[in-house]
Amino acid sequence: MRKIDPEKQQAKRRQIVAAAVECFARSGFHATSTAEICAAAGMSPGNLFHYFDSKSAIIEAIALEDQREVAKFFAGLPDTGDAIAAIQQIAAAALEQATDPVYARISIEIAAEATRNPEITALFAINGTLVKSKLIGILKRGIANGQIDPGLNPALAATWLIALTDGAIGRAVMDPAFKPKAHAPMLQLMIRRFLQPQSS
Amino acid sequence: MRKIDPEKQQAKRRQIVAAAVECFARSGFHATSTAEICAAAGMSPGNLFHYFDSKSAIIEAIALEDQREVAKFFAGLPDTGDAIAAIQQIAAAALEQATDPVYARISIEIAAEATRNPEITALFAINGTLVKSKLIGILKRGIANGQIDPGLNPALAATWLIALTDGAIGRAVMDPAFKPKAHAPMLQLMIRRFLQPQSS
Repeated sequence: MRKIDPEKQQAKRRQIVAAAVECFARSGFHATSTAEICAAAGMSPGNLFHYFDSKSAIIEAIALEDQREVAKFFAGLPDTGDAIAAIQQIAAAALEQATDPVYARISIEIAAEATRNPEITALFAINGTLVKSKLIGILKRGIANGQIDPGLNPALAATWLIALTDGAIGRAVMDPAFKPKAHAPMLQLMIRRFLQPQSS
Repeated sequence: MRKIDPEKQQAKRRQIVAAAVECFARSGFHATSTAEICAAAGMSPGNLFHYFDSKSAIIEAIALEDQREVAKFFAGLPDTGDAIAAIQQIAAAALEQATDPVYARISIEIAAEATRNPEITALFAINGTLVKSKLIGILKRGIANGQIDPGLNPALAATWLIALTDGAIGRAVMDPAFKPKAHAPMLQLMIRRFLQPQSS
Protein backbone atom coordinates (compact mmCIF):
# COMPACT_ATOMS: atom_id res chain seq x y z
CA MET A 1 0.00 0.00 0.00
CA ARG A 2 1.17 3.47 -0.92
CA LYS A 3 1.89 5.81 1.97
CA ILE A 4 -0.11 9.06 1.97
CA ASP A 5 2.02 12.15 2.21
CA PRO A 6 -0.16 14.66 4.15
CA GLU A 7 1.57 17.65 2.57
CA LYS A 8 1.04 16.35 -0.95
CA GLN A 9 -2.55 15.50 -0.04
CA GLN A 10 -3.10 19.05 1.18
CA ALA A 11 -1.50 20.55 -1.93
CA LYS A 12 -3.71 18.40 -4.17
CA ARG A 13 -6.84 19.47 -2.29
CA ARG A 14 -5.88 23.12 -2.70
CA GLN A 15 -5.28 22.60 -6.40
CA ILE A 16 -8.80 21.16 -6.75
CA VAL A 17 -10.36 23.97 -4.70
CA ALA A 18 -8.59 26.60 -6.84
CA ALA A 19 -9.81 24.92 -10.04
CA ALA A 20 -13.36 24.68 -8.64
CA VAL A 21 -13.35 28.38 -7.70
CA GLU A 22 -12.50 29.28 -11.32
CA CYS A 23 -15.27 26.98 -12.63
CA PHE A 24 -17.89 28.22 -10.15
CA ALA A 25 -17.03 31.83 -10.92
CA ARG A 26 -17.39 31.15 -14.63
CA SER A 27 -20.51 28.97 -14.69
CA GLY A 28 -22.08 29.07 -11.23
CA PHE A 29 -22.42 26.27 -8.65
CA HIS A 30 -25.28 24.49 -10.40
CA ALA A 31 -24.08 24.64 -13.97
CA THR A 32 -20.58 23.42 -13.03
CA SER A 33 -20.15 19.66 -13.36
CA THR A 34 -17.53 17.64 -11.51
CA ALA A 35 -16.21 16.71 -14.98
CA GLU A 36 -15.53 20.42 -15.58
CA ILE A 37 -13.68 20.70 -12.26
CA CYS A 38 -11.64 17.60 -13.13
CA ALA A 39 -10.68 19.10 -16.48
CA ALA A 40 -9.70 22.42 -14.87
CA ALA A 41 -7.66 20.63 -12.19
CA GLY A 42 -6.11 18.32 -14.77
CA MET A 43 -7.12 15.06 -13.12
CA SER A 44 -9.44 12.12 -13.66
CA PRO A 45 -12.82 11.86 -11.88
CA GLY A 46 -11.53 8.82 -9.96
CA ASN A 47 -8.58 10.85 -8.75
CA LEU A 48 -10.79 13.82 -7.79
CA PHE A 49 -13.17 11.61 -5.81
CA HIS A 50 -10.15 10.39 -3.88
CA TYR A 51 -9.94 13.91 -2.40
CA PHE A 52 -13.57 15.10 -2.41
CA ASP A 53 -16.59 12.82 -2.55
CA SER A 54 -19.00 15.46 -3.93
CA LYS A 55 -19.35 18.99 -5.30
CA SER A 56 -20.77 19.98 -1.89
CA ALA A 57 -17.58 18.80 -0.21
CA ILE A 58 -15.60 21.14 -2.48
CA ILE A 59 -17.90 24.07 -1.64
CA GLU A 60 -17.37 23.26 2.04
CA ALA A 61 -13.60 23.35 1.47
CA ILE A 62 -13.97 26.79 -0.18
CA ALA A 63 -15.79 28.05 2.94
CA LEU A 64 -13.05 26.65 5.20
CA GLU A 65 -10.31 28.15 3.02
CA ASP A 66 -12.14 31.48 3.21
CA GLN A 67 -12.26 31.22 7.01
CA ARG A 68 -8.54 30.54 7.17
CA GLU A 69 -7.81 33.54 4.95
CA VAL A 70 -10.02 35.86 7.01
CA ALA A 71 -8.39 34.67 10.24
CA LYS A 72 -4.95 35.19 8.68
CA PHE A 73 -5.90 38.68 7.50
CA PHE A 74 -7.07 39.76 10.95
CA ALA A 75 -4.05 38.17 12.64
CA GLY A 76 -1.76 40.12 10.30
CA LEU A 77 -3.47 43.46 10.86
CA PRO A 78 -0.95 45.79 12.52
CA ASP A 79 -2.22 47.08 15.85
CA THR A 80 -1.78 50.81 15.30
CA GLY A 81 -3.97 51.66 18.28
CA ASP A 82 -6.16 53.72 15.94
CA ALA A 83 -9.59 52.06 15.74
CA ILE A 84 -10.90 54.08 12.79
CA ALA A 85 -7.67 53.53 10.82
CA ALA A 86 -7.95 49.78 11.50
CA ILE A 87 -11.53 49.69 10.18
CA GLN A 88 -10.51 51.76 7.16
CA GLN A 89 -7.75 49.27 6.47
CA ILE A 90 -10.23 46.38 6.62
CA ALA A 91 -12.56 48.27 4.27
CA ALA A 92 -9.71 48.93 1.83
CA ALA A 93 -8.92 45.20 1.72
CA ALA A 94 -12.62 44.40 1.24
CA LEU A 95 -12.85 46.91 -1.61
CA GLU A 96 -9.84 45.34 -3.28
CA GLN A 97 -11.45 41.89 -3.01
CA ALA A 98 -14.80 43.19 -4.25
CA THR A 99 -13.24 44.42 -7.46
CA ASP A 100 -11.45 41.13 -8.14
CA PRO A 101 -13.75 39.53 -10.77
CA VAL A 102 -13.33 35.95 -9.50
CA TYR A 103 -13.98 36.97 -5.89
CA ALA A 104 -17.01 39.07 -6.91
CA ARG A 105 -18.52 36.25 -8.95
CA ILE A 106 -17.99 33.62 -6.27
CA SER A 107 -19.48 35.94 -3.62
CA ILE A 108 -22.59 36.46 -5.75
CA GLU A 109 -22.85 32.71 -6.40
CA ILE A 110 -22.64 32.06 -2.66
CA ALA A 111 -25.34 34.65 -1.96
CA ALA A 112 -27.56 33.15 -4.68
CA GLU A 113 -27.05 29.66 -3.30
CA ALA A 114 -27.61 30.88 0.28
CA THR A 115 -31.14 32.01 -0.65
CA ARG A 116 -32.01 28.39 -1.48
CA ASN A 117 -29.71 26.17 0.52
CA PRO A 118 -29.58 26.61 4.32
CA GLU A 119 -26.44 24.45 4.53
CA ILE A 120 -24.55 26.94 2.36
CA THR A 121 -25.90 29.83 4.41
CA ALA A 122 -24.70 28.14 7.61
CA LEU A 123 -21.26 27.34 6.15
CA PHE A 124 -20.52 30.90 5.07
CA ALA A 125 -22.33 32.44 8.05
CA ILE A 126 -19.44 31.20 10.25
CA ASN A 127 -17.13 33.42 8.24
CA GLY A 128 -19.57 36.35 8.38
CA THR A 129 -19.81 35.99 12.13
CA LEU A 130 -16.01 36.00 12.40
CA VAL A 131 -15.68 39.27 10.44
CA LYS A 132 -18.53 40.86 12.38
CA SER A 133 -17.09 39.90 15.77
CA LYS A 134 -13.68 41.27 14.80
CA LEU A 135 -15.27 44.57 13.74
CA ILE A 136 -17.32 44.71 16.95
CA GLY A 137 -14.12 44.18 18.94
CA ILE A 138 -12.37 47.07 17.18
CA LEU A 139 -15.44 49.31 17.57
CA LYS A 140 -15.63 48.57 21.30
CA ARG A 141 -11.95 49.32 21.79
CA GLY A 142 -12.37 52.55 19.82
CA ILE A 143 -15.34 53.55 21.96
CA ALA A 144 -13.45 52.71 25.17
CA ASN A 145 -10.49 54.91 24.24
CA GLY A 146 -12.54 57.81 22.89
CA GLN A 147 -11.74 57.34 19.19
CA ILE A 148 -15.25 56.23 18.22
CA ASP A 149 -18.63 57.79 19.03
CA PRO A 150 -19.92 56.03 22.19
CA GLY A 151 -23.49 56.59 20.95
CA LEU A 152 -23.05 53.90 18.28
CA ASN A 153 -24.24 50.35 18.90
CA PRO A 154 -21.18 48.24 17.89
CA ALA A 155 -23.17 45.31 16.44
CA LEU A 156 -25.43 47.53 14.32
CA ALA A 157 -22.50 49.69 13.18
CA ALA A 158 -20.49 46.55 12.25
CA THR A 159 -23.41 45.23 10.20
CA TRP A 160 -23.63 48.42 8.13
CA LEU A 161 -19.87 48.54 7.63
CA ILE A 162 -20.09 45.02 6.19
CA ALA A 163 -23.09 46.00 4.05
CA LEU A 164 -21.15 48.98 2.70
CA THR A 165 -18.19 46.93 1.49
CA ASP A 166 -20.43 44.06 0.34
CA GLY A 167 -22.29 46.64 -1.72
CA ALA A 168 -19.04 47.40 -3.54
CA ILE A 169 -19.33 43.91 -5.09
CA GLY A 170 -22.62 44.95 -6.69
CA ARG A 171 -21.14 48.21 -7.95
CA ALA A 172 -18.09 46.41 -9.38
CA VAL A 173 -20.41 44.10 -11.32
CA MET A 174 -23.21 46.50 -12.33
CA ASP A 175 -21.54 49.92 -12.69
CA PRO A 176 -18.86 50.23 -15.39
CA ALA A 177 -17.75 53.54 -13.84
CA PHE A 178 -16.87 51.86 -10.54
CA LYS A 179 -13.11 51.86 -10.13
CA PRO A 180 -11.60 51.10 -6.72
CA LYS A 181 -8.88 53.75 -6.89
CA ALA A 182 -11.34 56.53 -7.71
CA HIS A 183 -13.91 55.34 -5.18
CA ALA A 184 -11.70 54.36 -2.22
CA PRO A 185 -11.24 57.86 -0.72
CA MET A 186 -15.03 58.44 -0.48
CA LEU A 187 -15.45 55.07 1.24
CA GLN A 188 -12.80 56.02 3.79
CA LEU A 189 -14.41 59.43 4.35
CA MET A 190 -17.82 57.83 4.85
CA ILE A 191 -16.42 55.45 7.48
CA ARG A 192 -14.61 58.21 9.35
CA ARG A 193 -17.64 60.52 9.44
CA PHE A 194 -19.86 57.67 10.55
CA LEU A 195 -17.63 56.53 13.41
CA GLN A 196 -15.83 59.58 14.78
CA PRO A 197 -17.06 61.19 18.02
CA GLN A 198 -19.59 63.92 17.24
CA SER A 199 -18.58 67.43 18.20
CA SER A 200 -22.07 68.77 18.89
CA MET B 1 -59.40 37.38 -37.38
CA ARG B 2 -59.68 38.07 -33.67
CA LYS B 3 -59.09 41.65 -32.58
CA ILE B 4 -56.31 42.18 -30.05
CA ASP B 5 -57.38 44.11 -26.99
CA PRO B 6 -54.23 46.06 -25.98
CA GLU B 7 -55.29 46.24 -22.34
CA LYS B 8 -55.87 42.50 -22.11
CA GLN B 9 -52.58 41.93 -23.93
CA GLN B 10 -50.79 44.13 -21.41
CA ALA B 11 -52.45 42.38 -18.45
CA LYS B 12 -51.46 38.99 -19.84
CA ARG B 13 -47.85 40.10 -20.29
CA ARG B 14 -47.73 41.34 -16.69
CA GLN B 15 -49.15 38.04 -15.49
CA ILE B 16 -46.36 36.18 -17.28
CA VAL B 17 -43.68 38.54 -15.95
CA ALA B 18 -44.97 38.11 -12.37
CA ALA B 19 -44.96 34.31 -12.76
CA ALA B 20 -41.45 34.42 -14.23
CA VAL B 21 -40.16 36.58 -11.35
CA GLU B 22 -41.38 33.95 -8.86
CA CYS B 23 -39.74 31.15 -10.87
CA PHE B 24 -36.44 33.00 -11.34
CA ALA B 25 -36.32 33.87 -7.63
CA ARG B 26 -36.89 30.24 -6.74
CA SER B 27 -34.63 28.49 -9.24
CA GLY B 28 -32.46 31.11 -10.92
CA PHE B 29 -32.47 32.31 -14.53
CA HIS B 30 -30.67 29.27 -15.95
CA ALA B 31 -32.44 26.52 -14.08
CA THR B 32 -35.89 27.94 -14.89
CA SER B 33 -37.45 26.43 -18.01
CA THR B 34 -40.15 28.14 -20.06
CA ALA B 35 -42.33 25.11 -19.17
CA GLU B 36 -42.00 26.11 -15.50
CA ILE B 37 -42.99 29.70 -16.29
CA CYS B 38 -46.00 28.44 -18.29
CA ALA B 39 -47.09 26.27 -15.36
CA ALA B 40 -46.72 29.17 -12.91
CA ALA B 41 -48.63 31.52 -15.23
CA GLY B 42 -51.27 28.86 -15.89
CA MET B 43 -50.93 28.86 -19.69
CA SER B 44 -49.74 26.64 -22.51
CA PRO B 45 -46.31 27.14 -24.15
CA GLY B 46 -48.05 28.13 -27.38
CA ASN B 47 -49.99 30.79 -25.53
CA LEU B 48 -46.87 32.07 -23.73
CA PHE B 49 -44.89 32.32 -26.97
CA HIS B 50 -47.71 34.50 -28.29
CA TYR B 51 -46.58 37.12 -25.75
CA PHE B 52 -42.84 36.46 -25.39
CA ASP B 53 -40.72 34.63 -27.92
CA SER B 54 -37.95 33.64 -25.47
CA LYS B 55 -36.84 33.59 -21.84
CA SER B 56 -34.55 36.54 -22.66
CA ALA B 57 -37.59 38.54 -23.81
CA ILE B 58 -39.18 37.95 -20.40
CA ILE B 59 -35.99 39.07 -18.61
CA GLU B 60 -36.02 42.19 -20.76
CA ALA B 61 -39.63 42.83 -19.71
CA ILE B 62 -38.58 42.50 -16.05
CA ALA B 63 -35.92 45.16 -16.59
CA LEU B 64 -38.45 47.48 -18.26
CA GLU B 65 -40.99 46.88 -15.48
CA ASP B 66 -38.26 47.70 -12.96
CA GLN B 67 -37.47 50.94 -14.82
CA ARG B 68 -41.14 51.95 -14.76
CA GLU B 69 -41.34 51.27 -11.02
CA VAL B 70 -38.20 53.26 -10.26
CA ALA B 71 -39.47 56.19 -12.37
CA LYS B 72 -42.85 56.00 -10.56
CA PHE B 73 -41.13 55.93 -7.17
CA PHE B 74 -39.05 59.02 -7.91
CA ALA B 75 -42.02 60.84 -9.43
CA GLY B 76 -44.04 60.13 -6.26
CA LEU B 77 -41.33 61.33 -3.88
CA PRO B 78 -42.70 64.39 -2.05
CA ASP B 79 -40.49 67.42 -2.54
CA THR B 80 -39.89 68.41 1.06
CA GLY B 81 -37.01 70.71 0.14
CA ASP B 82 -34.81 68.72 2.52
CA ALA B 83 -32.15 66.93 0.48
CA ILE B 84 -30.88 64.65 3.27
CA ALA B 85 -34.44 63.67 4.24
CA ALA B 86 -35.15 62.84 0.57
CA ILE B 87 -32.09 60.58 0.36
CA GLN B 88 -33.01 58.94 3.67
CA GLN B 89 -36.47 58.24 2.28
CA ILE B 90 -34.96 56.62 -0.83
CA ALA B 91 -32.68 54.54 1.41
CA ALA B 92 -35.63 53.46 3.57
CA ALA B 93 -37.50 52.27 0.47
CA ALA B 94 -34.37 50.45 -0.76
CA LEU B 95 -33.96 48.75 2.63
CA GLU B 96 -37.57 47.60 2.54
CA GLN B 97 -37.04 46.13 -0.94
CA ALA B 98 -33.74 44.51 0.08
CA THR B 99 -35.47 42.55 2.83
CA ASP B 100 -38.25 41.31 0.54
CA PRO B 101 -37.09 37.73 -0.22
CA VAL B 102 -38.29 37.70 -3.84
CA TYR B 103 -36.68 41.08 -4.58
CA ALA B 104 -33.43 40.02 -2.87
CA ARG B 105 -33.24 36.76 -4.81
CA ILE B 106 -34.00 38.36 -8.17
CA SER B 107 -31.40 41.08 -7.52
CA ILE B 108 -28.75 38.47 -6.76
CA GLU B 109 -29.75 36.48 -9.87
CA ILE B 110 -29.42 39.62 -11.97
CA ALA B 111 -25.98 40.37 -10.50
CA ALA B 112 -24.88 36.76 -11.10
CA GLU B 113 -26.11 36.90 -14.68
CA ALA B 114 -24.54 40.33 -15.20
CA THR B 115 -21.08 38.86 -14.50
CA ARG B 116 -21.50 36.56 -17.53
CA ASN B 117 -23.91 38.24 -19.90
CA PRO B 118 -23.15 41.80 -21.10
CA GLU B 119 -26.71 42.16 -22.48
CA ILE B 120 -28.17 41.67 -18.99
CA THR B 121 -25.63 44.12 -17.56
CA ALA B 122 -26.64 46.70 -20.17
CA LEU B 123 -30.38 46.15 -19.61
CA PHE B 124 -30.23 46.68 -15.86
CA ALA B 125 -27.51 49.33 -16.10
CA ILE B 126 -30.14 51.69 -17.56
CA ASN B 127 -32.03 51.39 -14.31
CA GLY B 128 -28.88 51.82 -12.24
CA THR B 129 -28.02 54.96 -14.20
CA LEU B 130 -31.52 56.32 -13.56
CA VAL B 131 -31.23 55.86 -9.78
CA LYS B 132 -27.72 57.29 -9.75
CA SER B 133 -28.70 60.37 -11.75
CA LYS B 134 -31.69 61.03 -9.47
CA LEU B 135 -29.42 60.79 -6.41
CA ILE B 136 -26.85 63.07 -8.03
CA GLY B 137 -29.62 65.60 -8.74
CA ILE B 138 -30.73 65.61 -5.09
CA LEU B 139 -27.12 65.83 -3.86
CA LYS B 140 -26.43 68.80 -6.14
CA ARG B 141 -29.57 70.60 -4.97
CA GLY B 142 -28.61 69.90 -1.35
CA ILE B 143 -25.11 71.26 -1.94
CA ALA B 144 -26.51 74.35 -3.68
CA ASN B 145 -28.80 75.19 -0.77
CA GLY B 146 -26.27 74.44 1.97
CA GLN B 147 -27.87 71.24 3.29
CA ILE B 148 -25.12 68.95 2.02
CA ASP B 149 -21.33 69.21 2.40
CA PRO B 150 -20.04 70.99 -0.73
CA GLY B 151 -16.78 69.05 -0.40
CA LEU B 152 -18.50 65.85 -1.57
CA ASN B 153 -18.32 64.77 -5.21
CA PRO B 154 -21.98 64.03 -6.07
CA ALA B 155 -21.29 61.09 -8.42
CA LEU B 156 -18.92 59.34 -6.00
CA ALA B 157 -21.25 59.97 -3.05
CA ALA B 158 -24.24 58.63 -5.02
CA THR B 159 -22.29 55.47 -5.89
CA TRP B 160 -21.54 54.73 -2.24
CA LEU B 161 -25.13 55.44 -1.20
CA ILE B 162 -26.24 52.84 -3.75
CA ALA B 163 -23.55 50.40 -2.56
CA LEU B 164 -24.74 50.85 1.03
CA THR B 165 -28.35 49.93 0.31
CA ASP B 166 -27.35 47.21 -2.18
CA GLY B 167 -25.24 45.76 0.60
CA ALA B 168 -28.41 45.38 2.67
CA ILE B 169 -29.46 42.67 0.19
CA GLY B 170 -26.39 40.66 1.14
CA ARG B 171 -27.07 41.15 4.86
CA ALA B 172 -30.71 40.13 4.44
CA VAL B 173 -29.61 36.90 2.78
CA MET B 174 -26.47 36.04 4.77
CA ASP B 175 -27.07 37.42 8.28
CA PRO B 176 -30.01 35.94 10.22
CA ALA B 177 -29.77 38.83 12.72
CA PHE B 178 -30.46 41.40 9.99
CA LYS B 179 -33.92 42.90 10.57
CA PRO B 180 -34.87 46.11 8.73
CA LYS B 181 -36.65 47.70 11.69
CA ALA B 182 -33.70 47.25 14.03
CA HIS B 183 -31.15 48.30 11.39
CA ALA B 184 -32.94 51.24 9.71
CA PRO B 185 -32.03 53.94 12.26
CA MET B 186 -28.28 53.23 11.95
CA LEU B 187 -28.55 53.43 8.14
CA GLN B 188 -30.24 56.81 8.42
CA LEU B 189 -27.63 58.06 10.89
CA MET B 190 -24.82 56.91 8.61
CA ILE B 191 -26.33 58.81 5.66
CA ARG B 192 -26.85 62.00 7.66
CA ARG B 193 -23.31 62.01 9.08
CA PHE B 194 -21.86 61.30 5.65
CA LEU B 195 -23.74 64.08 3.86
CA GLN B 196 -24.24 66.94 6.31
CA PRO B 197 -21.99 70.01 6.14
CA GLN B 198 -18.97 69.55 8.41
CA SER B 199 -18.66 71.97 11.31
CA SER B 200 -14.87 72.01 11.51
